[in-house]
Formats: sequence, structure tokens, C-alpha cells
Amino acid sequence: MVEYSESGLDEVFAAVADPTRRAILQALSERPATIGEIARPFSVSLNAVSKHVMVLERAGLLRREVHGREHVCRLQARPLEDATAWLEHYRQFWEVRLDALEHYVSNKMKSAKKSRARKETITHARPH
Amino acid sequence: MVEYSESGLDEVFAAVADPTRRAILQALSERPATIGEIARPFSVSLNAVSKHVMVLERAGLLRREVHGREHVCRLQARPLEDATAWLEHYRQFWEVRLDALEHYVSNKMKSAKKSRARKETITHARPH
Repeated sequence: MVEYSESGLDEVFAAVADPTRRAILQALSERPATIGEIARPFSVSLNAVSKHVMVLERAGLLRREVHGREHVCRLQARPLEDATAWLEHYRQFWEVRLDALEHYVSNKMKSAKKSRARKETITHARPH
Repeated sequence: MVEYSESGLDEVFAAVADPTRRAILQALSERPATIGEIARPFSVSLNAVSKHVMVLERAGLLRREVHGREHVCRLQARPLEDATAWLEHYRQFWEVRLDALEHYVSNKMKSAKKSRARKETITHARPH
């Protein structure tokens, strides 16, 4: 009855629940980078960035390649596909709400038009 | 440079990072339910379910209506739209990988066909 722990979703959602980690993914979506390069625009320590990188790595969102003393990090977007697929089920609910809103606005506009047209008819019908 | 804390995304992603909370949302996507009804299929205490419900409520994913002594919970899917919008940026990366895989498989199949055709030609060319 109860749909339990789809592999990886816990780690992926927890990983992207942090704004620094989302910013790291955003930066890596532009180009691969070393830990030092990733850390540069942040006001947090290299050590703190390293920890964020480890969380992303465990969630499968980042691959680290060791070139001598440098660790180059690359985005791995694949697990985000599963996250999106999970969210997809809920699209119907927010889209229904948007449909209802659109319907409401279009009805309001129609009745505003009608009442304006009625007023104009009355105005024109008055003897000058 | 660094895109920081889009309002609500932290809470929404953290809320759905837990399998019990995802299961609660799944149940509420079928129908609104009281805390007791939500708790029934789970092996955790009513108190634990209450805490999960509070996390979902704080993230804006659940609305609680008090009818006398009963709290009826309803799904609020709207914040999941923002989460999906954030993830949307990464679609290009997993789709590029799928494209590359499709290209690889189709090339492999073409070259397998060619080599089979060549073999058949050689077999047919042999004198009986």
C-alpha cells in the first residue's frame, strides 16, 4: 500500500535542499571545475565546500576525476531525472489549479465586457 | 554570481527527501485525509506521522482544516511546481546523454547489420 524508499530519491532531494549545493550544481552545469574553482564565489571555507561536494557525490550528482593533485568535478544530471519523474505525478494538481484560475479570469473578463457593452447601449439609447 | 536561496525550495526539497513524507503526499493526492487515516498504513506512531505532517505543512505542501476535533489534510501541490521548474534546467544534460546513447546503439546496430550482410555475401560466393 505504502510506496517506500525509491532508491536514491532520499539522497537526491536532500542534496538539492541546500542553496549552496544547488549553486554548485548550477556552476557545474556551465563547466567542470576543481574544488578551488567551485569555492571561489562562496563566502564559505574550502572545507565546507568539500563537504557539500561529498554530499553531491554520494547522491550521484557529481563525479570527481583526480588529475594529479587536482580534483575536477563534473555534473551528473541523471539522478535529477528520477526526481523530476517523481514530481511529474503532481503536475496534474497545479495545472488543474491554473486551469481553474484561467477559467475564472476569462469569465470575469467576459462579464466585464458584457456590462460595459450594456452601459454603452444605455448611453446611446438616451435621447440627446 | 551565486544564485542563493530561492524562497521555499530548501523546505520543499527537504520535505520530499523523506520516504514517509513522499508516501503521505501520494496518499493525499488520492483524497484528503485525517491524521489518523494518514497514519493507518504506516508502521510508525501517530506522533511521528504528526511531525511529518507539520514538516509538509511548513513547506506549504499540505493544508490542514480543523473540523471540530478532526484535522483534515489536503495536498497543496503548488510548491512542487517551483521544484520542477528548478529541475527543468538540468533536463538538457540527461537528454543529451540519452541522445548520445541512442546514437551509439543505432551505430552499433548498423555496423552489426553490415558485418552480417558481408558474411552472407562471402557464404553465398563460396563454390558449393
